[in-house]
Amino acid sequence: MEGPKGILLVGDGLGDRPVAELGSRTPLEAAEKPNMDRLAAEGECGIMDPIAPGVRAGSDTSHLALLGYDPYECYTGRGPFEAAGIGMDVKQGDVAFRCNFTTVNDDMVVTDRRAGRITEGTEQLAAAVNGMQIEDVTCLFKESVAHRGALVLRGPGLGANITDTDPHVEGAHVHEAKPVDPNDAASAKTARIVNQFVKKSYEALKDHAVNKAREASGQKPANIILPRGAGLAPSLTPINERFGLTSACVAETGLIKGVAKYVGMKIIDVPEATGGLDSNLIAMAKAIIETLKDHNFVLCNVKGPDVAGHDAKAQVKVDFIQIMDEMVGYLLDNVDENTYIALTADHSTPISVKDHSGDPVPIAFWGPGVRTDKVMHFDERSVTSGGLHRIRGCYIMNILTQLMAIQEKFGA
Amino acid sequence: MEGPKGILLVGDGLGDRPVAELGSRTPLEAAEKPNMDRLAAEGECGIMDPIAPGVRAGSDTSHLALLGYDPYECYTGRGPFEAAGIGMDVKQGDVAFRCNFTTVNDDMVVTDRRAGRITEGTEQLAAAVNGMQIEDVTCLFKESVAHRGALVLRGPGLGANITDTDPHVEGAHVHEAKPVDPNDAASAKTARIVNQFVKKSYEALKDHAVNKAREASGQKPANIILPRGAGLAPSLTPINERFGLTSACVAETGLIKGVAKYVGMKIIDVPEATGGLDSNLIAMAKAIIETLKDHNFVLCNVKGPDVAGHDAKAQVKVDFIQIMDEMVGYLLDNVDENTYIALTADHSTPISVKDHSGDPVPIAFWGPGVRTDKVMHFDERSVTSGGLHRIRGCYIMNILTQLMAIQEKFGA
Repeated sequence: MEGPKGILLVGDGLGDRPVAELGSRTPLEAAEKPNMDRLAAEGECGIMDPIAPGVRAGSDTSHLALLGYDPYECYTGRGPFEAAGIGMDVKQGDVAFRCNFTTVNDDMVVTDRRAGRITEGTEQLAAAVNGMQIEDVTCLFKESVAHRGALVLRGPGLGANITDTDPHVEGAHVHEAKPVDPNDAASAKTARIVNQFVKKSYEALKDHAVNKAREASGQKPANIILPRGAGLAPSLTPINERFGLTSACVAETGLIKGVAKYVGMKIIDVPEATGGLDSNLIAMAKAIIETLKDHNFVLCNVKGPDVAGHDAKAQVKVDFIQIMDEMVGYLLDNVDENTYIALTADHSTPISVKDHSGDPVPIAFWGPGVRTDKVMHFDERSVTSGGLHRIRGCYIMNILTQLMAIQEKFGA
Repeated sequence: MEGPKGILLVGDGLGDRPVAELGSRTPLEAAEKPNMDRLAAEGECGIMDPIAPGVRAGSDTSHLALLGYDPYECYTGRGPFEAAGIGMDVKQGDVAFRCNFTTVNDDMVVTDRRAGRITEGTEQLAAAVNGMQIEDVTCLFKESVAHRGALVLRGPGLGANITDTDPHVEGAHVHEAKPVDPNDAASAKTARIVNQFVKKSYEALKDHAVNKAREASGQKPANIILPRGAGLAPSLTPINERFGLTSACVAETGLIKGVAKYVGMKIIDVPEATGGLDSNLIAMAKAIIETLKDHNFVLCNVKGPDVAGHDAKAQVKVDFIQIMDEMVGYLLDNVDENTYIALTADHSTPISVKDHSGDPVPIAFWGPGVRTDKVMHFDERSVTSGGLHRIRGCYIMNILTQLMAIQEKFGA
């Protein structure tokens, strides 16, 4: 494919705060990362609020924002993106949930939230509940990895503002879903359907051959499905239509793939991209270069920095950044001449917080003609003196597509 | 109370412009203020637009914004906040006014807008008009300090877009309140009620014993009440609910206390906080530290810098900043380990303007883990090279609550 190309490379949770163990430097400040620094030195830098200053973004809401969609308008829960991420066809107006296969006793008390971390047979169990009709609603269910799955409810007049059925602790009864607002008839309908689905899943699964075999071998049966994280599937203009792209996504987690799929991007699976600290980032970089042969935009999310942040492992985060730096080096060495790279993060996951924070993240745009500034290092504090100043995530696609010269002019 | 704490310390009108008398320095630049400078050096700095760039904020609209409420949505006049500030119970849909006890002659010409700066007897005068019923509207009136008071109209279908009854000059007739838009029936109703209230206040007060005594001793009678600054009381989600706080306010003026009370903060009265240049700021600092024992957030407004700015007294402003600096020192020395301080202003009150200007103000966030920058001084120009760049007042609570790690994550 001819013409300019764009890469949006997102280090998940890459931003951080100064860490005492690292001499009051952030992991990015402490890492040896010549390629990221080259990208910053040859590019234009700044800090970026994924959603808005101080807002603690999730990876899903942040990626929606980075791709130009307002999460305050389109996001009511992660269900639709989880479901899309495992290949389910989610349509506007559906209400979708992430689910666990769970073990309950005869009194509907949860004895294992993850059904003994079941790894096999979930496809057959899913087939036993998929397609169920409750009232005028079709219940589509698909298994994901391990004990996970997703449920999509399709029918008229459904809402998503309901409480979870999953009690989130063991030893507690399965909860009854309820509408958060008793006057919200659409959500009341969803709650009614979900409660019936949960009951029927137990009826369908408790004596299922897969579970009989598990019990015979001393394993916990996956005898019920508990949905949570309800979200109403929004209507979104596909990203290719909005920005004139042929776009694809190289990502590691179902949630990011789900967001990308939902906005109409092609999903490129890289088998060696594990979502963990052992992921093969060079394989991902190769997939990006390969994909750009017949696409003009690739979003890539690298999960590792977030994993190290959640685990509060400063040196592990530093080491992983150095691995990610090699990936950046591979990209810089192998992209076509007319390629722009935006390097950033979807949020900070500081070592000291062990979770997402609302701190802004560094961003750099690299490619022919960008207004280079004096920033020489890609880290949270060096970039604050950059030419971009402080921007919001929702403007990244505008900046990238205007650099790529594929953006329509607004006005005359 | 365990857990992280937050202090938002606001120097009222603290921002300024370069002053010739101070060698083209601003009062903040000219002042010796080692503690504010320490806070800036150890913190992250930037400039802040209380409402939006160039907007001349009032103290009320600014504090609403700093606390996370959009004044363009919730503010129609200062009446509701004045009334709340003197302890009146203002409810959504009420229309409230600030009022003066005034002296008029028999022809309803204002002869003293402040009724001889009456200081005593206003409680009895207020009792003579409080609770009046006009049409289907209850008129609640309470005296404030000196010649001041507040009126709350409670009844169906009231609007706040009316002209003032107070002519704002002496020798002029009392004005008749009118709806600004003749087609605005709700405001027309309010104007009708207010005009009757003014007339009835004259009837109730002109021969009141307090006024008879005043006249006998050669003092001007407080024989009429003139309302102004009509505002419709908005529906606001309490700040504790919005941000997960147990919050309190240490302030000097009724207006700031009123805003704080209106959003549901506990008001801490400090008898030595006078609202003037003689205020005891160490007493206020002690009240903050004491209050944080059972609250996790304190807003504190220090009025002095605004007073000096309105009076165009540059050296007085410098001197007062130095007193405020000692207050900052007391806080830095006495806060618990896990405390965050945001130091800023609600607007600039430049010496050269003698009133609020639309210039941005300095801001610094201080506390464990903040991304320190290279700024060494807390003043309007030094902070512009800080890591925060330029933010808006409405993001302060987001930033503070994410630093305190009490903010809910948006998404997954």
